Amino acid sequence: MRNDTLLRALLREPTEYTPVWLMRQAGRYLPEYNATRAKAGSFLALAKNPTLAAEVTLQPLERFALDAAIVFSDILTVPDAMGLGLGFTEGEGPKFERPLREEREIRKLAPPDLRKLEYVFGAIRESRSGLGGRVPLIGFSGSPFTLACYMVEGTGSDDWRTVKAMRHSRPDLLHAILKVNARAVTDYLNAQIEAGAQAVMVFDTWGGALAFDDYEPFSLAYSREVLKALKKEHEGRRVPSVLFTKGGNPWLGAIAASGADAIGLDWTSDPREARRIAAGRVALQGNFDPAALFAPADAVRAEARRVLDRFGPAPGHVFNLGHGILQKTPIDSVSALVDEVRAYSRKMRSAPAPAA
Amino acid sequence: MRNDTLLRALLREPTEYTPVWLMRQAGRYLPEYNATRAKAGSFLALAKNPTLAAEVTLQPLERFALDAAIVFSDILTVPDAMGLGLGFTEGEGPKFERPLREEREIRKLAPPDLRKLEYVFGAIRESRSGLGGRVPLIGFSGSPFTLACYMVEGTGSDDWRTVKAMRHSRPDLLHAILKVNARAVTDYLNAQIEAGAQAVMVFDTWGGALAFDDYEPFSLAYSREVLKALKKEHEGRRVPSVLFTKGGNPWLGAIAASGADAIGLDWTSDPREARRIAAGRVALQGNFDPAALFAPADAVRAEARRVLDRFGPAPGHVFNLGHGILQKTPIDSVSALVDEVRAYSRKMRSAPAPAA
Repeated sequence: MRNDTLLRALLREPTEYTPVWLMRQAGRYLPEYNATRAKAGSFLALAKNPTLAAEVTLQPLERFALDAAIVFSDILTVPDAMGLGLGFTEGEGPKFERPLREEREIRKLAPPDLRKLEYVFGAIRESRSGLGGRVPLIGFSGSPFTLACYMVEGTGSDDWRTVKAMRHSRPDLLHAILKVNARAVTDYLNAQIEAGAQAVMVFDTWGGALAFDDYEPFSLAYSREVLKALKKEHEGRRVPSVLFTKGGNPWLGAIAASGADAIGLDWTSDPREARRIAAGRVALQGNFDPAALFAPADAVRAEARRVLDRFGPAPGHVFNLGHGILQKTPIDSVSALVDEVRAYSRKMRSAPAPAA
Repeated sequence: MRNDTLLRALLREPTEYTPVWLMRQAGRYLPEYNATRAKAGSFLALAKNPTLAAEVTLQPLERFALDAAIVFSDILTVPDAMGLGLGFTEGEGPKFERPLREEREIRKLAPPDLRKLEYVFGAIRESRSGLGGRVPLIGFSGSPFTLACYMVEGTGSDDWRTVKAMRHSRPDLLHAILKVNARAVTDYLNAQIEAGAQAVMVFDTWGGALAFDDYEPFSLAYSREVLKALKKEHEGRRVPSVLFTKGGNPWLGAIAASGADAIGLDWTSDPREARRIAAGRVALQGNFDPAALFAPADAVRAEARRVLDRFGPAPGHVFNLGHGILQKTPIDSVSALVDEVRAYSRKMRSAPAPAA
């Protein structure tokens, strides 16, 4: 691999600069992505076509000096393969035709036949081949809890009232779903590793919506099961894992002890406090507010330096956004961000280290 | 006043039970509210009619054994009175006709003539008269930052990209707006106190959307200015103040030192950790997940007990939701919640205290 900076940073090894990639970096803010998506016909058709998915996976690397690619896919592929019937309504996001509400249906739930997810593994193989060793390829999945949110609710939600009502009225049923999801996500990520993913990330997008006492038993416990059962090595190399809970501040200590090699931080996290909590056990990824990319390039560069300063020059930081890149993000801002991270962090790391 | 439990709890004085009220308790989940709103013609017409606003303010007290009323109004009355032209689109929330984007417009911004907000003070006077001393009446305002979010963005937003772009490109302009807002909110809340509000609450609904380093200078600093300048006494009695930042976990220590008598907690906060941070300096309000009200009554009661247990029997807790009550919340759940809080907390407080 010509540039393995990301993998080394995720394992807290020294790097010459802070590697950077952007959640949802292959996405609607790129005209070339929109062109490929139009060719595919729909978001889901694009995700299910390995050749086109690999094409959009590689697109952002042509524009920006990114240190990783992430396979283009959706977090809801697993419940779709379980038979819930994933669809997307324009402007309204994902929707399952058959949400899980009835005990009878829940008792029948099983991890999917991985052959139904072959399109993801195919996209990984084609992306790896297209990358030709330039940078590592990241695989990913929704967390067991985040999948359950959509599976029970049927769609995205501002309040997740249906899944939370189940948590209070029939916690046993929610645990039954989560148990199946944990096995499914484990198998899915391990198959991604077999197909060539060189790092994997668990997106716990909605764990942070849980009540304080509920996060550990309903979300973190199942992510931990997944992380524990992941293949640690492939092709003779460590495969680092990342766990990202959006809004995870109240539980950062527990998240840092989850078994992941790195944890994701949104922009409300204090990097200094996160460094203290991580205590050298895990690397940290993220923290730049995606909305700040709507400022002019100079302001974006200043904000990038601020975030880098807050993390400091110690190893174990991967620069990223605190959530997925937003639609209509100006491309010039993304260029400015990526360039500034590379240049400024290289300078930071070559400066004499302050006395510890 | 026949029941001043809320006021005493907000000042951390001993009470016989934990007082309870619910954010947005006068709202769309009540059929009688919907009937009055239909009579008024629209949400805004209802808010601007002191007699009808007082009518809906009192409605929830007829159904539930609540320990406070909160005047029915909107958080955006102040920028409306500044001339931005507040409107509501059905199902899409608030929208300003003239959002603040241009420096020229921002430089002209001034605190509103309070006579334009006379309908709020009238609603307070009529509510006080209708209450006849049963329970205290709470007044409120959006925080300077939360008002600025809507004033700049023009509507609600998932990402507040416009106001955040301004924060990075022209922080001086955002500070100029916040400075005017802080004076306006101070005058507005003091006038509410003069009109009869017996406690006041600052709703910082969107401060928690800020990047970690930005919360203090762009939100908390201005809420603190307001809190400092509030009348502390009226009608010979202390007027307690509450500051609530949704998603405020990363800054709870600073929020507790803001000068408010009590701070609001959403459901992701750990009550034990909040008690530790508050360290007896401020009371705590909130924490019950509004989505849990969609569970059956028995489960709602169990969850209410769990929240009460987490706070423990020490003085200085006001039971509330962690955010406004949701549309379509079952009324039976609300009854069960309010009754359980009263009964269980009375039992908790009469039990022998554990050794400290």
